[in-house]
Amino acid sequence: MTAYNAFYAQSGGVTPVINASAAGVIQTAANYPDKINKVYAGQDGILGALTENLIDTSLENPADVEALKYTPSGAFGSCRYKLKSIEEHRAQYERLIEVFKAHDIRYFFYNGGGDSQDTSHKVSQLSASLGYPITCIGVPKTIDNDLPFTDCSPGFGSVAKYVAVSILEASMDVESMCSTSTKVFVMEVMGRHAGWIAAASGLAIDERGLGPDVILFPEVNFDQAAFLGLVQDTVAQKGFCSIVVSEGVKYPDGRFLADSGVKDAFGHAQLGGVAPVVTDIIKQNLELKCHWAVCDYLQRAARHIGSRTDMEQAYALGKAAVDYAMAGENAIMPIIVRTSDEPYQWEIGKAELDKVANIEEKMPADYIRQDGFGITDACRTYLAPLISGESYPPYHNGIPDYVRLQKIKVPKTLPEFNETD
Amino acid sequence: MTAYNAFYAQSGGVTPVINASAAGVIQTAANYPDKINKVYAGQDGILGALTENLIDTSLENPADVEALKYTPSGAFGSCRYKLKSIEEHRAQYERLIEVFKAHDIRYFFYNGGGDSQDTSHKVSQLSASLGYPITCIGVPKTIDNDLPFTDCSPGFGSVAKYVAVSILEASMDVESMCSTSTKVFVMEVMGRHAGWIAAASGLAIDERGLGPDVILFPEVNFDQAAFLGLVQDTVAQKGFCSIVVSEGVKYPDGRFLADSGVKDAFGHAQLGGVAPVVTDIIKQNLELKCHWAVCDYLQRAARHIGSRTDMEQAYALGKAAVDYAMAGENAIMPIIVRTSDEPYQWEIGKAELDKVANIEEKMPADYIRQDGFGITDACRTYLAPLISGESYPPYHNGIPDYVRLQKIKVPKTLPEFNETD
Repeated sequence: MTAYNAFYAQSGGVTPVINASAAGVIQTAANYPDKINKVYAGQDGILGALTENLIDTSLENPADVEALKYTPSGAFGSCRYKLKSIEEHRAQYERLIEVFKAHDIRYFFYNGGGDSQDTSHKVSQLSASLGYPITCIGVPKTIDNDLPFTDCSPGFGSVAKYVAVSILEASMDVESMCSTSTKVFVMEVMGRHAGWIAAASGLAIDERGLGPDVILFPEVNFDQAAFLGLVQDTVAQKGFCSIVVSEGVKYPDGRFLADSGVKDAFGHAQLGGVAPVVTDIIKQNLELKCHWAVCDYLQRAARHIGSRTDMEQAYALGKAAVDYAMAGENAIMPIIVRTSDEPYQWEIGKAELDKVANIEEKMPADYIRQDGFGITDACRTYLAPLISGESYPPYHNGIPDYVRLQKIKVPKTLPEFNETD
Repeated sequence: MTAYNAFYAQSGGVTPVINASAAGVIQTAANYPDKINKVYAGQDGILGALTENLIDTSLENPADVEALKYTPSGAFGSCRYKLKSIEEHRAQYERLIEVFKAHDIRYFFYNGGGDSQDTSHKVSQLSASLGYPITCIGVPKTIDNDLPFTDCSPGFGSVAKYVAVSILEASMDVESMCSTSTKVFVMEVMGRHAGWIAAASGLAIDERGLGPDVILFPEVNFDQAAFLGLVQDTVAQKGFCSIVVSEGVKYPDGRFLADSGVKDAFGHAQLGGVAPVVTDIIKQNLELKCHWAVCDYLQRAARHIGSRTDMEQAYALGKAAVDYAMAGENAIMPIIVRTSDEPYQWEIGKAELDKVANIEEKMPADYIRQDGFGITDACRTYLAPLISGESYPPYHNGIPDYVRLQKIKVPKTLPEFNETD
């Protein structure tokens, strides 16, 4: 049997554990030497295939590949780039085939979220559409947790852990000083369309009662009067109020709070975070001392506080992608199937790429509390296991010893391709 | 020999390790049963003494006291409250003595920064000024690292570690996606008067070259043209630029950048963070895609990424405060004395409270790079050991198992005191 090369690429927003999936793909491919020769990683995702920028992962130190399990960001580079349909941009697909042929690539592993799995699906059809024999398996990833079929998306659990730990710590801080200082703390988290990350902050609240007293979800229209009432009551009762706000929170008329007409000195609309806007609303109406934080990329890069469960699932999905390909599967994506809440148990299943692509999994309505400002027990039951377990990177001189790969390129053999725009 | 009670209180902004100092005081006091009976902690700092809200730490579970070593915030509550001079507000000092007498308190341990050590100093003079025999020892603490005499301030090392790790992680994130996405990332850190925390972010830069490409210090007037030039050059060279900005950065005319005339929809000045302002300057001049984060309280509460060195020093200073008091010292503050950079070695020394109070230790000029946008080797040599070593809290269900004390109050015996304002 002839062995062929495999292509692996990272796509879309990176996560604290996407590199664990890369390690799963690379290490598992080595289990099939009679079928897979080398794994070539795309420099900056699918762009690496289009521009023939291929990284020869076989030249990396095996210890460095192992270290990908605890290294955040995209070790090979990622991109925000969606292939058009074959009808719209046939040249791109022909170029992909040209690169695959030139480098003997017959396996394609694409590590990304919903948009990216659309690309995976298009590539998986190359066999049928353009006659090139390729096996294409998607590897799920997104901090947004909005992929369908899979119980959760790798990357989400670590971000969930970061936001839960962060709001717990900040709430303890505010509580300890509220008698003479700040009364309200507002923390902004990601989630433009779905409130999964904001919801996860609610895991901080346990028997201690500390954590977000108010959560603002993109799924719930912002009701300023109800919000201010809850903040005021909470401060009256506890002495302080801790708030988590999702970047995607909207007014009933559909406008984002973050886009609330704030102008800078030059009259330009300031597209700021939503945390300062929420803080301003509180200050102007309740006259309470407030502080705010915006997590932004910190939350999605914070491998130092990664979830062990999340890391293990990310690795397992990378591994499963290769195992499925070797078992003759095509056009699928391995997924996490939850088999038990308590004790938490999961196994690997699969979903068809044509069904995965471009579907956003919304948060179930019964995960949000009746009043719209918190999570339900059902939500906690779902979320809790995803942040369980710690997985610390090694440290050197007080700083995580994250790996930097050599990224040695495969020599180019083709003319340049300039139609990536 | 008669044993007396001791008073311990936390003052000013809390830190990730101020409770380690509390553990040092409480556990060490137990070594002197013939001199110290109980340690009473002030609820909300010195206010607890004025209002007779005393927490009997002897009723806490010893394991819970031990757990203070890894619990952030102020476990007994802290306050921003500075005693006036005895001439200005004699009633407050008389009240303190009344409470001390009523509860047999002859030792006073005050855990705080520069302003707080001013209070310690005033209390230490009660013997001379009002004839009440009290031994007063300050316990240093501040994330601002601006206390004089001591080599560093407990709390700073952990914040330093947080900001260095955070900007490293975020920089890796931006680097991996810069070909098609964000080019500039701006992270705002604390430090209104001194750039210590901003400087610490520079520790992220090692042989990898990742970390803050630009640091904006409060000590350096903001030079917009030079700043924009450096950002542009960095993006041209590396593909992206990572920036850390201290909240206290000012224009040459003395205005804070954070107070840059931004108005909200109602025309009110928006006192936002400096990160969005810096981002806006970049966007308007260089038209680069930017993201920004504001760490705010997250940085000073992040015990999950605490520095082991910092925690050990915080504990040692609490312990030393009691040991000094037992050795007959008064009106002093134990300090950290560095005896060697490499290997890093330190020991405990002492400083006179009257010299400590109200002095702000500035960052040496030779710690800031000639161009004003980075740190020097001398600065790295000083800072590096302060973030060394990890000190993880235990976890329960994926969340740090921070302790919550019972805080059982000592029964009040005095009439209320209402002159705390």
